[in-house]
Amino acid sequence: MGANHIRRLAIIGGTHGNEFTGAYLVKKLERFPDLVKRSSFETITLLANPKAFAVARRYVDRDLNRCFSIKDLENPQRSSYEDKQAKVIHQVLAAEENSKVDAIFDLHSTTANMGLTIIPVSDSPFNLQLAAYLSNIDPTIKVYQWEQSHDRCFLRSRFELGLTIEIGPIAQGVLNAWFFEQTEKLLCMILDYIDAYNRGQAPTAPSQLTIYRCTEIVDYPRDEEGIQAMIHPQLQFKDYAPLNPGDPLFLNFEGKTIFYEGESTVYPVFINEAAYYEKGIAVCLTKKEQIPIKSFTQVEK
Amino acid sequence: MGANHIRRLAIIGGTHGNEFTGAYLVKKLERFPDLVKRSSFETITLLANPKAFAVARRYVDRDLNRCFSIKDLENPQRSSYEDKQAKVIHQVLAAEENSKVDAIFDLHSTTANMGLTIIPVSDSPFNLQLAAYLSNIDPTIKVYQWEQSHDRCFLRSRFELGLTIEIGPIAQGVLNAWFFEQTEKLLCMILDYIDAYNRGQAPTAPSQLTIYRCTEIVDYPRDEEGIQAMIHPQLQFKDYAPLNPGDPLFLNFEGKTIFYEGESTVYPVFINEAAYYEKGIAVCLTKKEQIPIKSFTQVEK
Repeated sequence: MGANHIRRLAIIGGTHGNEFTGAYLVKKLERFPDLVKRSSFETITLLANPKAFAVARRYVDRDLNRCFSIKDLENPQRSSYEDKQAKVIHQVLAAEENSKVDAIFDLHSTTANMGLTIIPVSDSPFNLQLAAYLSNIDPTIKVYQWEQSHDRCFLRSRFELGLTIEIGPIAQGVLNAWFFEQTEKLLCMILDYIDAYNRGQAPTAPSQLTIYRCTEIVDYPRDEEGIQAMIHPQLQFKDYAPLNPGDPLFLNFEGKTIFYEGESTVYPVFINEAAYYEKGIAVCLTKKEQIPIKSFTQVEK
Repeated sequence: MGANHIRRLAIIGGTHGNEFTGAYLVKKLERFPDLVKRSSFETITLLANPKAFAVARRYVDRDLNRCFSIKDLENPQRSSYEDKQAKVIHQVLAAEENSKVDAIFDLHSTTANMGLTIIPVSDSPFNLQLAAYLSNIDPTIKVYQWEQSHDRCFLRSRFELGLTIEIGPIAQGVLNAWFFEQTEKLLCMILDYIDAYNRGQAPTAPSQLTIYRCTEIVDYPRDEEGIQAMIHPQLQFKDYAPLNPGDPLFLNFEGKTIFYEGESTVYPVFINEAAYYEKGIAVCLTKKEQIPIKSFTQVEK
């Protein structure tokens, strides 16, 4: 068994209580644990925010997926329900020697039309090779990366290996069977890949990966009354499609179009995500990059 | 001016705080009141649940659109935020002689694929004639009616004239420009119709109206752990399409299909509506009826 062996991994759902795909998938896996059992590693499943799930809200006190900065985790003043929950999750999955995991797979959904999107928890070669393998098998799977500075308070930021999975468009508080099955299928592909990897038999990934890297976050036009324009109907549901300088971006309430004034083509994602109104995000602009995939040393047999 | 003249009407949005179409449309109309001004009647606009809208939730304490039974309105023990709000709205719009309105138009949205759906607040000839006129101009507009017993606690149940408008599929907490424009356009058609009606010049409606009348409410299969099956992928987004005995209804977490076992063809609506999980409604089954439209006496010129 080599040093890179993945001994234990966690599948996490319901980090946001109204993202039902992951929450119900975790509940299913709790009932049918054999579905995620593989002989070369241990699988832990976790419904991360049960109180928010019970009331079908993103969170009760504050966004659990913004509670994982080292500063907040170490701050005893931070004592909201989600802060406490973050500390327990961090303790169990990241800190305690006998329970910590080597990789996490955190299941989310979005109201944006992002299909299946994977977000590597870091740029480690393992994550990128896994991402390249998955998007090669199913080219509709996209790979997204936040700005490095943006996600340091996310659950995933406390881990080196793993992926966040987003799927959409799904309304909050809705369980959509088709998306549920897509997510389960992707998860099984990931587990089979890791099982093969642990045996030194990981399938060869392509030498390149297309990654959509966030370069700019754009908010809705606002004044003291609130938002002053909507995502333009021509942009709605056009996640990952090119947005060129001069293309429609917003439509205000007087019927006036506001155009994209950037200097080059970008690829918008998280377009009109319901949960991001409160975060000042109307759309995340990305650049599309081709990155070479380094082959990592496989686990020794 | 005849007895049937509509002197004052109310346009209501944000009865549910996370149904942004109506809430933002009312905010727009507050800024541009000329859009809903007509010379033969007065128009009032109302954001019904501002506290829930501010936090992008359906409600704060309980569903405002279930607070309008006479019993609850008269019960001083009922003192939640929404109960108080309902009492004020009822007082102003339905009870006080100098402010009450003759008709209401209550703007909602749904995560179900119901397109533009209108729900007459009663079976009064005026409402049915208006519904017949609208669905004749735009045949994609559907007309739905709850079971009479079901909606007595709804805001609309305190009024004789008017419509509820539903539009979808829209995720909760999302403002979709296309649906926003569709709702605004429909509202303007309604106001123009009423203005013509008040002048004794209402356009002739067709002699028949297709109405989808709720006959049965079906809940998700549940046990003490929660829901045990999802809307079947073949049924998702198929609102108003015929569902025949033997057609797939649910898919459980073991992958087993649960079939519709009714005796005749029905037309399901509110399929997988996010807000109805807590109400025990997975789908509302309707029968499709053709009803004759009685011509009413027009307002005398």
